[in-house]
Amino acid sequence: MDNPVVVEVLRGARVESRHRGAGAIVDADGAVVLAFGEIDEPVFPRSAVKALQALPLVESGAAETLLLSEAEIALACASHSGAPVHVETAAAMLAKAGLDAASLACGVHWPLGEDASRALSRAGRAPSQLHNNCSGKHAGFLCLACASGWETGGYEQAAHPVQRAAKAAIEDVTGAALGEDVCATDGCSIPTYAIPLRALALGFARLATGAGLASSRAAAAKRIFAAVATNPAMVAGEGRFDTEVMRLFGPRVFVKTGAEGVYCAALPELGLGFAVKADDGATRAAQIMIAALIGRMLPGGESERRRLAPFASPILRNWNGVEVGALRAAGPLRSQ
Amino acid sequence: MDNPVVVEVLRGARVESRHRGAGAIVDADGAVVLAFGEIDEPVFPRSAVKALQALPLVESGAAETLLLSEAEIALACASHSGAPVHVETAAAMLAKAGLDAASLACGVHWPLGEDASRALSRAGRAPSQLHNNCSGKHAGFLCLACASGWETGGYEQAAHPVQRAAKAAIEDVTGAALGEDVCATDGCSIPTYAIPLRALALGFARLATGAGLASSRAAAAKRIFAAVATNPAMVAGEGRFDTEVMRLFGPRVFVKTGAEGVYCAALPELGLGFAVKADDGATRAAQIMIAALIGRMLPGGESERRRLAPFASPILRNWNGVEVGALRAAGPLRSQ
Repeated sequence: MDNPVVVEVLRGARVESRHRGAGAIVDADGAVVLAFGEIDEPVFPRSAVKALQALPLVESGAAETLLLSEAEIALACASHSGAPVHVETAAAMLAKAGLDAASLACGVHWPLGEDASRALSRAGRAPSQLHNNCSGKHAGFLCLACASGWETGGYEQAAHPVQRAAKAAIEDVTGAALGEDVCATDGCSIPTYAIPLRALALGFARLATGAGLASSRAAAAKRIFAAVATNPAMVAGEGRFDTEVMRLFGPRVFVKTGAEGVYCAALPELGLGFAVKADDGATRAAQIMIAALIGRMLPGGESERRRLAPFASPILRNWNGVEVGALRAAGPLRSQ
Repeated sequence: MDNPVVVEVLRGARVESRHRGAGAIVDADGAVVLAFGEIDEPVFPRSAVKALQALPLVESGAAETLLLSEAEIALACASHSGAPVHVETAAAMLAKAGLDAASLACGVHWPLGEDASRALSRAGRAPSQLHNNCSGKHAGFLCLACASGWETGGYEQAAHPVQRAAKAAIEDVTGAALGEDVCATDGCSIPTYAIPLRALALGFARLATGAGLASSRAAAAKRIFAAVATNPAMVAGEGRFDTEVMRLFGPRVFVKTGAEGVYCAALPELGLGFAVKADDGATRAAQIMIAALIGRMLPGGESERRRLAPFASPILRNWNGVEVGALRAAGPLRSQ
């Protein structure tokens, strides 16, 4: 099946580039409210399921035992910018588990946030594992291992209890069976499991509503959503899509990016989950897809859509600030 | 017409993302040697035609009058990394025209080259227009204006003699008519004209052979190709695709990237020109497309293809250096 063109990049009056993709909006009973493209083929959600991977940390009581703050729980669900606040929060999580940055298995990269990255260079410093955008998730994994009395070494491996718990939570919430045939290695060295968009969207509807989940899991999901909603800057960073969209709408919108053009989202007030993937892996396309879908569903009509416009139909400017084009939703995502 | 999938991104054993695109290999008579996808729809070549835009600088005698070096001519065709050597060379070109960085209209951005960018931050400095990847092209435009006795102000505007000369050269070499209907504004504020891939490929075949060009234009093309071949580090920078591929093959291969997934190339020994565009604008896809095509055509067989393999089928590693996947040519570009 050929996925439709869903995003167009305009330069002047002409379409310069186009992105194809698929997506689904599903309720907590699994009913498909809206879909386009292939939604039953497994795709790697990458970091878009960090909130699901954080469920065992909260549900097990580890977060409680280690007195993790709301901001720290939010950072466990983050692909953060590597700003000082992110780095310090990840270090504080590790300290609560009696560990430090040397325990992290996520690897090192320069901060995703350009300001954070430049500031680090300017200070003549190099990044550590704490600057890795996944350091909060990994710190959460280590907190879970520590509070559970598990070995911390090898926590990133598929066979370790931490990864088994994360996988079991994802399977339970999405209903997808995650076998070795859909397993690969993520950028931060943990396993990533390919899951159909339909199942991902269902998972986020359940996460948002608690429907179909054990009560302890539903409570953990509620706490995670609340933590993210009150700490949107922890989940990405200043000026970044996820943070700014959640700032605009507070607890009404949960949204999380994953590498290679994935987005998952939820609108708790409607009990809906969303999942999209740009075929070509482009984040710019996935952002417009998810913004267009949120704008279509979010109660509040035209005024809410106007607030989303900078995300759903951004203007392209060149190095002199001259407007040279725009991105816009297309095909099944075009606004009526 | 739907362009075919031409590049696949693998994570583990699964295809995680896929890129579609179109491309053409054409000889200097316009005969299509190989084509896939839509090659008659105009696409913006962006920086992939900088060698064509530099023709008037050389052909007019301006480069001669101002005693531009081979390295400076190469930089006029560059999307450079903003390394010190690029910045100094652009400044030297401007000085030969009696100008400085304030005359540049390309705008400011941080160096494309990560090393150059970090070094600038570390020194507590900010980028200038000289760091813009197009500063060499703009310095070339200003040299042309200066040696021709034209006003330098407004040289980036479509109506200025510099841009009229660049446009006339592109029209002549590619055979495409460049009207207002195909004109938009490039990242560096000069006009960019959409041109079919078939015409772009023809243009590079003519540039490589001189066939069909006035003798002064053919001589200018020859000088530009020689300047680039002997200064591959000027055209992009250390570790970047264009520089490293041209270093491997010297004057046998000319290759130049353009934003939004475009590549143009030429194999002078065969008299062939190449042009490709990834539908979605992804540079990673366009690189594999052009590397696969060069590998297919370049005389030398298996041993040359092996040297191209790191560019045609790169391995993907994560932040810990673990091999997690690969990119590969697909569909009509799959190696037999």
